[in-house]
Amino acid sequence: MALRAALRSRSGLSGLLSQWSSCSSDIRMCVSPLLVPQQRNYSTPPKIRVEFDQSTGVAVMHMQSPPVNSLSLDFLTELCISVEKLEMDKSCRGLIITSAQPKVFSAGLDITEMYGKSPEHCGAFWRSVQEMWLKLYGSNMVTVAAINGSSPAGGCLMAMTCDYRIMADNPRYNIGLNETQLGIVAPFWFMDTMKNTVGQRTTEMALQLGLLYKPADALKIGLVDQLEPEDQVIAAATQTISRWLAIPDHARQITKSMMRKKTIDKLTSNRESDIQYFVNFITKDSIQKSLGGYMEMLKKRKA
Amino acid sequence: MALRAALRSRSGLSGLLSQWSSCSSDIRMCVSPLLVPQQRNYSTPPKIRVEFDQSTGVAVMHMQSPPVNSLSLDFLTELCISVEKLEMDKSCRGLIITSAQPKVFSAGLDITEMYGKSPEHCGAFWRSVQEMWLKLYGSNMVTVAAINGSSPAGGCLMAMTCDYRIMADNPRYNIGLNETQLGIVAPFWFMDTMKNTVGQRTTEMALQLGLLYKPADALKIGLVDQLEPEDQVIAAATQTISRWLAIPDHARQITKSMMRKKTIDKLTSNRESDIQYFVNFITKDSIQKSLGGYMEMLKKRKA
Amino acid sequence: MALRAALRSRSGLSGLLSQWSSCSSDIRMCVSPLLVPQQRNYSTPPKIRVEFDQSTGVAVMHMQSPPVNSLSLDFLTELCISVEKLEMDKSCRGLIITSAQPKVFSAGLDITEMYGKSPEHCGAFWRSVQEMWLKLYGSNMVTVAAINGSSPAGGCLMAMTCDYRIMADNPRYNIGLNETQLGIVAPFWFMDTMKNTVGQRTTEMALQLGLLYKPADALKIGLVDQLEPEDQVIAAATQTISRWLAIPDHARQITKSMMRKKTIDKLTSNRESDIQYFVNFITKDSIQKSLGGYMEMLKKRKA
Repeated sequence: MALRAALRSRSGLSGLLSQWSSCSSDIRMCVSPLLVPQQRNYSTPPKIRVEFDQSTGVAVMHMQSPPVNSLSLDFLTELCISVEKLEMDKSCRGLIITSAQPKVFSAGLDITEMYGKSPEHCGAFWRSVQEMWLKLYGSNMVTVAAINGSSPAGGCLMAMTCDYRIMADNPRYNIGLNETQLGIVAPFWFMDTMKNTVGQRTTEMALQLGLLYKPADALKIGLVDQLEPEDQVIAAATQTISRWLAIPDHARQITKSMMRKKTIDKLTSNRESDIQYFVNFITKDSIQKSLGGYMEMLKKRKA
Repeated sequence: MALRAALRSRSGLSGLLSQWSSCSSDIRMCVSPLLVPQQRNYSTPPKIRVEFDQSTGVAVMHMQSPPVNSLSLDFLTELCISVEKLEMDKSCRGLIITSAQPKVFSAGLDITEMYGKSPEHCGAFWRSVQEMWLKLYGSNMVTVAAINGSSPAGGCLMAMTCDYRIMADNPRYNIGLNETQLGIVAPFWFMDTMKNTVGQRTTEMALQLGLLYKPADALKIGLVDQLEPEDQVIAAATQTISRWLAIPDHARQITKSMMRKKTIDKLTSNRESDIQYFVNFITKDSIQKSLGGYMEMLKKRKA
Repeated sequence: MALRAALRSRSGLSGLLSQWSSCSSDIRMCVSPLLVPQQRNYSTPPKIRVEFDQSTGVAVMHMQSPPVNSLSLDFLTELCISVEKLEMDKSCRGLIITSAQPKVFSAGLDITEMYGKSPEHCGAFWRSVQEMWLKLYGSNMVTVAAINGSSPAGGCLMAMTCDYRIMADNPRYNIGLNETQLGIVAPFWFMDTMKNTVGQRTTEMALQLGLLYKPADALKIGLVDQLEPEDQVIAAATQTISRWLAIPDHARQITKSMMRKKTIDKLTSNRESDIQYFVNFITKDSIQKSLGGYMEMLKKRKA
C-alpha cells in the first residue's frame, strides 16, 4: 500500500486495524504475504521478466515477484532499470505491463520496507516509488496496462501511469486507491494522477472512501478503458498498442509530454521535500510501533 | 440568490425583470417571500435546529427559517455558529444538512440584506456568505446534503459544499446556480465549487444559461449523487454517512483537505478584495435603485 | 491542419507520408485541395458571407472559401475582420458559424501558407491563427457552431471556441484534432481548448491518437452538444441561440469571460514566443524540404 501522511495519531492505527478485519478476502490475500521478510539476496530470480519482440517494437514486462508483486525497494529498482533500458532502446516503442502472478496485478507498496528501517533506507525506498512513477508516467513509449488481477493502491497507481488500461473482466478483482480504508493517505501525486484519469469529483469521493472498484465499475468511471476475458487481456493489449504505434512517435511523444508536464513537474520540483516528509512521518516512534503491531496482527491472522 | 457582479447597467436590471416573468412557479415561490423584511429580533425562534446523535456521531441540521430558508445575515451567522460548535466537538464526525421547510432546501441569498443597507452591513453580509462556504467546504466532518426541496443559487452552493448530495426525486424541484437568469453573476468561488463537482464544460454551460436542473438531470450531470423518494431522503443520508464514517477520520480528513485546498486558498487569500468588490458594486445608486424597483415589483406580484 | 511543433526529424515526415495513405477518403478530400496555390487576388469573391438579422440580433457567418474552407491568411484575416465588426455592433448578440461548402465545415490550416514563405509571412500567418482563436474564444456574443460537414484539426478548433456545437448527423463526417495522425502536434492552446471541452483524460487519448470522431461518438464524449439531420442544423442553431439570448447579455458575458479567462491569458501572455517557436520550426530547411515533398506527393495523388 502507498503508505504516507497518515497514522499521525494512535487513532489512525487503531482505525487501520479495525478496518482490516472488514476487508474483503481479495485484499487480505494481496497484503498479508507482505509480512514475509524479503531477503536481499541478489541471486534470487529476477522480479521482472521482459519479452521484447523486435519485429513489433513492443516489450511485455511480466511482474513476477511472488506472491503478489508487492512494490519493494528491490522490485522497484529492478522495474526502473528495466524501463530505463527499454526507454534507451530506440527499437522499443511500446510497453505492456502485466503480472505473472495469479489473481493480482500488484498489491502496492511493501510495508516491510518501512518497518524497523533506518531513515536512509526509508528515504531510498520512497525515492524508488517516485522514480517508478516518474519513469512510467513520463515514458516516451506507448504504455498499456494489462491488468490481469486485483490492483489496489500502488498497483492502481502503476496502472494509471499507462496510456491505456485493459482489465480482466472478473468481478472478484478490483482496482483503486484504497489508502484511506487502511487509515493512510495517498500522496499528492497519486491524487493528481487519478484526477487526470477520472476527474476531480470522482477522485474526491474515491479517495475519501478508499474505494476499490470492480472491473465493470472501474470501466464506468473511466479508471480502466476496456474489459476483456482474463485469458485475452494481453492479446487485447497487443492489439491496442499496435493502433497507438500507427501514430508517428515524435508527434505522439510531444503530445503526451505536453499533456502530463505540469503534473510531472509538480513532483520533480518537490521531490526532496516529499521524501523528507515521508521519512519524518514513517520513522516516528508511534508510527513504527503501530506498524509493528499491525504486522504482528497480520502474522497471527495468517497462522 | 447569490447577488454579485452584475446589474452594472440598467439593461441588466430590465433583463432581470423580464426574465422574472418567465420563471417557473417553483422559483417564484422560492424568492418572493424574501421581500418580507426580516426583523432582527433575537428572541425569534432559532433558524437552525440541530439534532446530535451521540451514539452515531452524526448531527442533523434542520434549516427552519420560514418560508424558504433564505440566507440572511442572521441565518448565516446562526448556521456558522452551529457548524463551528459541531466542528469543535470531537464526538461529532458527520453532518447532514436538510430543510424543515416544505418544498425548498434553501432559496439562496436574501436580497433584503443588500437593499438600503450601509456599506458596512453589506460587507458584513458578504463576509457571512464567504464564512458559510469556508466552514462547510473545509469541514473536517463528513457532510451530506439531504436536498428535500428546490435549491437554486446559494442553496445549490450550500449543497455543493457537502461531500455527498441526495435529492428528493420530485420533478417539481430543481437545483442549480441560476444567477444569470436573474441578470447577475456567480462569484468565482461559486464557479470553482461547481467546476469541482461537474467539470469545466458543464459548468460553463450551466452558469451561462443559469440552468436549473430537475433531479433526474442533476443526477445525470453529477450535480447530485443519488435520488430518493422524498420521505426517504434523510434515512438515505443517514445510511450514506455511516458508510463514510467507516473510514478512519484522520486519513479521510487529510484527503479531503488536500483535494479542496487550492480552491479554498483562492478565496482565503482574496477575501477582503472579494468583499470590497461586492460592496462597491451593490451600493451603487443605480444598483440600489434597480433592487428597489425589483422588490417593489415582487411585492405587487405577491399582492 | 494545425501545423506546429512536429516533423522535427525526417522520420516525422515519413511517418506523415505513410500515415497519409491510410487516411479515410473524407480526409483526403479535405486536405488535398490545399495544394492548389491560392492566388492573392483581392478581387476574388469574399471568403466569408455574413447575414445579420437585425430583428433577432443574430448573425450567420457562412464560410465560403472553396473547396474546403482551408484556413489561409486571407481567409483568417477576413474572418477576424467580420467577427470584429459584429462584436462592435451592439445590436448583434449572437453568431452562428457554418459552412457554405459541401461536406466540410473547415479542413483546418492551409499548408501552402507555410511552404516557401518568408519568416515574416509565416509569423503573420501564425498570428492570424492566434487572432481567430482569441476573437472567437473570447467573444462577447453567443457563438454556435453549425457543423455541417467534416471538421478536422483547425476546423475542430474553430468549432470548439463556440458556446455550443450542433453537428450534422452524417456518419461520413468526422471531427477532431487529428494532428498527430499527420505527424504534427497541436499547440498548447488547442490542447487547453479541448481539455475545457471534454476533460483531461479524453483529450490525452484523443490527441495522442489524433482521433477523428464520427458525430455519434463526438456527442458521446461531449465534443459536440447536439446532432441534427443535415438540413436542419442551421435551424437548430437558430433555435438554440434564441434560448441563450434569453439570458441578460451582461451577466452571461461576465460569466463566460470568467470561465475562459485563464485559458485565454495563457496564450495572450505567450503570444510572441508562440509565434517565434512556430516560425523557427517551420522555416527549418529540413521541414521545408519535407513539406515540399509532402505537397508534391499530394499533387501526384490528385492527378
